[in-house]
Amino acid sequence: MPRRLITLTTDFGLSDHFAGAMKGVILGIAPNAEIVDITHEVTPFAIREGAFVIAQAYPYFPRGTIHVAVVDPGVGTSRRPILVEAAGQYFIGPDNGLLSMVYSREKHRARHIAAAKYFLPQVSGTFHGRDIFAPVAAHLARGVRPAQFGKRIEDHLRPNFEKPVRTGKRYWSGAVLKVDRFGNLITNFRLDEFPELQSRPFEMIVGLRSVTRLVATFAESPAGELALVAGSAGYLEVALNRGSAASLLKIGAGSPLELALL
Amino acid sequence: MPRRLITLTTDFGLSDHFAGAMKGVILGIAPNAEIVDITHEVTPFAIREGAFVIAQAYPYFPRGTIHVAVVDPGVGTSRRPILVEAAGQYFIGPDNGLLSMVYSREKHRARHIAAAKYFLPQVSGTFHGRDIFAPVAAHLARGVRPAQFGKRIEDHLRPNFEKPVRTGKRYWSGAVLKVDRFGNLITNFRLDEFPELQSRPFEMIVGLRSVTRLVATFAESPAGELALVAGSAGYLEVALNRGSAASLLKIGAGSPLELALL
Amino acid sequence: MPRRLITLTTDFGLSDHFAGAMKGVILGIAPNAEIVDITHEVTPFAIREGAFVIAQAYPYFPRGTIHVAVVDPGVGTSRRPILVEAAGQYFIGPDNGLLSMVYSREKHRARHIAAAKYFLPQVSGTFHGRDIFAPVAAHLARGVRPAQFGKRIEDHLRPNFEKPVRTGKRYWSGAVLKVDRFGNLITNFRLDEFPELQSRPFEMIVGLRSVTRLVATFAESPAGELALVAGSAGYLEVALNRGSAASLLKIGAGSPLELALL
Repeated sequence: MPRRLITLTTDFGLSDHFAGAMKGVILGIAPNAEIVDITHEVTPFAIREGAFVIAQAYPYFPRGTIHVAVVDPGVGTSRRPILVEAAGQYFIGPDNGLLSMVYSREKHRARHIAAAKYFLPQVSGTFHGRDIFAPVAAHLARGVRPAQFGKRIEDHLRPNFEKPVRTGKRYWSGAVLKVDRFGNLITNFRLDEFPELQSRPFEMIVGLRSVTRLVATFAESPAGELALVAGSAGYLEVALNRGSAASLLKIGAGSPLELALL
Repeated sequence: MPRRLITLTTDFGLSDHFAGAMKGVILGIAPNAEIVDITHEVTPFAIREGAFVIAQAYPYFPRGTIHVAVVDPGVGTSRRPILVEAAGQYFIGPDNGLLSMVYSREKHRARHIAAAKYFLPQVSGTFHGRDIFAPVAAHLARGVRPAQFGKRIEDHLRPNFEKPVRTGKRYWSGAVLKVDRFGNLITNFRLDEFPELQSRPFEMIVGLRSVTRLVATFAESPAGELALVAGSAGYLEVALNRGSAASLLKIGAGSPLELALL
Repeated sequence: MPRRLITLTTDFGLSDHFAGAMKGVILGIAPNAEIVDITHEVTPFAIREGAFVIAQAYPYFPRGTIHVAVVDPGVGTSRRPILVEAAGQYFIGPDNGLLSMVYSREKHRARHIAAAKYFLPQVSGTFHGRDIFAPVAAHLARGVRPAQFGKRIEDHLRPNFEKPVRTGKRYWSGAVLKVDRFGNLITNFRLDEFPELQSRPFEMIVGLRSVTRLVATFAESPAGELALVAGSAGYLEVALNRGSAASLLKIGAGSPLELALL
């Protein structure tokens, strides 16, 4: 059987047995699987943050990759497990918006995963990552066809947290999607959607400070001064050269941002 | 050579070269090894926590998997390295109780690993993970037979931290085994050993609070109220829906618990 | 194609998509790659710490291994990407000293990586790990020869942070290279360079304390007393048996040390 990539993106952390148990289940069913951790360090229950991470990673994976994402505060309730085909890849997770930053951008097909014969024999109320999502991914890697897992659906959740809202002729309200390890604030403003920022003056209000410079690389911004930089993912980030914007501003994921084009 | 799974469970953390060096040693000896991290984030020297993690993970791995566990405060002293065969799998680690939650449950054979020709040529006093346990696992993956590593033993350590102690007709004293990433307190009470909890009133004393409800899923317990839930591993957990029981109660691993059946 | 090991050592952390995106790029180009994480938890921008970690890990990897190291505060500036061949292995990273503890010890060849056809089509200003280092490593794993990436250089950076400086007939000044997970202070003094420590009295000043004992294993030093122990990497470590020397002394990486042979 050819080698099949399966990635994992969860909020399970790395200090418990959770990720390990998922890997055991996958490799027990699909010895041809090659497991790649994207992250297990999504903030617990932070669907938006998990959605952002998986959306930033998948474009760099080859066709046929199977992505398993589990940030699942509603585990054990009636929220559906879903399988999404998009961009030649596969995405498996709970229907709670976690995969929405993938399927909002891509032509896709979604299915409600319902065929219990591909689950572990005993499905716990608390750990669908191990009992449903991992074995489904493994069976897909072994060659089970998507349609065998369940019927097409059109009503999968479509939250809209990734775009800023226009609040006036030249005003937008946005939010911080995530704070990265370096303390950069990743915003939901994209440079390709706000190309004006490259040619005209602007002001972005972040906490009690305002940012008025857009720079090409972190190193260009003077030490101690905040600047916008287009991150590697296309989203504008509020950054402090060799420092932590998050620590300086004392704000985090979910904090509001206001943009004015001057 | 067929692919052979080797898992790692250690307290080495992820910020040093320790786990990386173990992987280099394994792959240098056994290019057919497929290494799976269970965790490197066991609390330093917390044998009980490591024992719990490996015991929760191994049942999900396929036959023939080789598990290496290293939480080893006595490294460099006379404690023995051991190899345990149980459940069709292999377990390698120090004889300090770390593997006891595996072999207390399973028919097994234990050996004292003594054949120094399977160690690295130079064995340091501080890093047997790299110098003894990793190369032994790799040689096992290449086909060396268990008996070649050393003689059978019967006196491997059998601590008894996994079960509550009966203190009265309807009273038991137990302990918190581990705090998971979500702040749930994993206790050493198992639902299959205390099925009465499903049908009659009870009180579990945890720190300054008492817990009197057993729920099927996290989402069922009202926000702000503590409840018991049978975790995916079968152990009862003291949980706070979408919150951290550990933060609320300010107690952690090792804390005592009292159960009264009413 | 034979399996090819590629290791990753970065300061990207594990909570973002960075490491995942690098892995996707590598596996998309080189399906025969076997990726091994050494660490993604180098302190952000801490070149010296990253240099230490990769230098401790590579000796345990087999010939032909490709090591990618990215701790890169100057990303987007004119610092060069380099490829170093040493010890039968390959090292890829920025020319900022990160690989210096490898090439200061080994006969080696260094090249300036300049052949943009082996980069991703679009190179961002902020994420050369994904856009340059990962695809270059993958092309190398597929069989591209080192010379195809760029010309030999001799002027790659040679910082000298790994050795203590002699300050008097029997006096040396050194530094803490890294604090490990257990709170041990890894110094830049090596036992093989200071064998006198085994046979004559000495005093090492660390913060406000002095250390006068050298022990063979952690367990030998009395609880609560500081001692020197030769770590598994050959560097002397200031250790507290079952405790954290870093917490006791309140000092960290970069802190100065004074050694007097008495």
